Amino acid sequence: MNKINIHEKFSLFEENWTPKVIAQSNGQLVKIAKGDGELVWHKHDNEDELFLVFQGQLTLQLRTGDIILNPGEMYVVAKGVEHCPKALPDTHFLMVEPASTAHTGTTKSEMTVASEQQTWL
Amino acid sequence: MNKINIHEKFSLFEENWTPKVIAQSNGQLVKIAKGDGELVWHKHDNEDELFLVFQGQLTLQLRTGDIILNPGEMYVVAKGVEHCPKALPDTHFLMVEPASTAHTGTTKSEMTVASEQQTWL
Repeated sequence: MNKINIHEKFSLFEENWTPKVIAQSNGQLVKIAKGDGELVWHKHDNEDELFLVFQGQLTLQLRTGDIILNPGEMYVVAKGVEHCPKALPDTHFLMVEPASTAHTGTTKSEMTVASEQQTWL
Repeated sequence: MNKINIHEKFSLFEENWTPKVIAQSNGQLVKIAKGDGELVWHKHDNEDELFLVFQGQLTLQLRTGDIILNPGEMYVVAKGVEHCPKALPDTHFLMVEPASTAHTGTTKSEMTVASEQQTWL
């Protein structure tokens, strides 16, 4: 594989809440996404989900309170924990999660991007 | 858990080539380390190892050539691939790898930090 420049990868797409896969490691996928506004409440019963912010601000709304992530900040949403990400305009973030992780868990939404539609960049 | 500010975590230690654990997710550990100079050639037979650079420059020397990582760049060293990291002074980087990953694989060195000695920050 070649090295991956993350900012360069972010320049290759515009859509919000549409994860793009940039690497795999130990059965987990590294994905990047842009956000603006709110996704939907959902949970992943079997997968932890790691979020790391590169630009903007990503708020992980949890039932217990908000986790507000600025650039250089990360958080792991544990399996089974309901969350609803929301973001300021032009927010860029990275996720690490098992290949089995459904975008919006068991919640179906117009915004859901099925795993097989999550393209590699 | 609380959110993790990665730059703040880097301010908490000075040692080079001494991974500190900052999070776990799906059985994998997120570690940060500082580098300066060269570690040792080694490989991990069963674990891929993800590197992401935050500051400085990390070169992953492989038998097939060098992968030179600047801030915002990442690379996954696949299981079984021999590598020897080297770094410019004041290099800061993050790794994601299974909890089972030995620091310098099957190579023992004065620089090796056993997993049980890799402290949480």
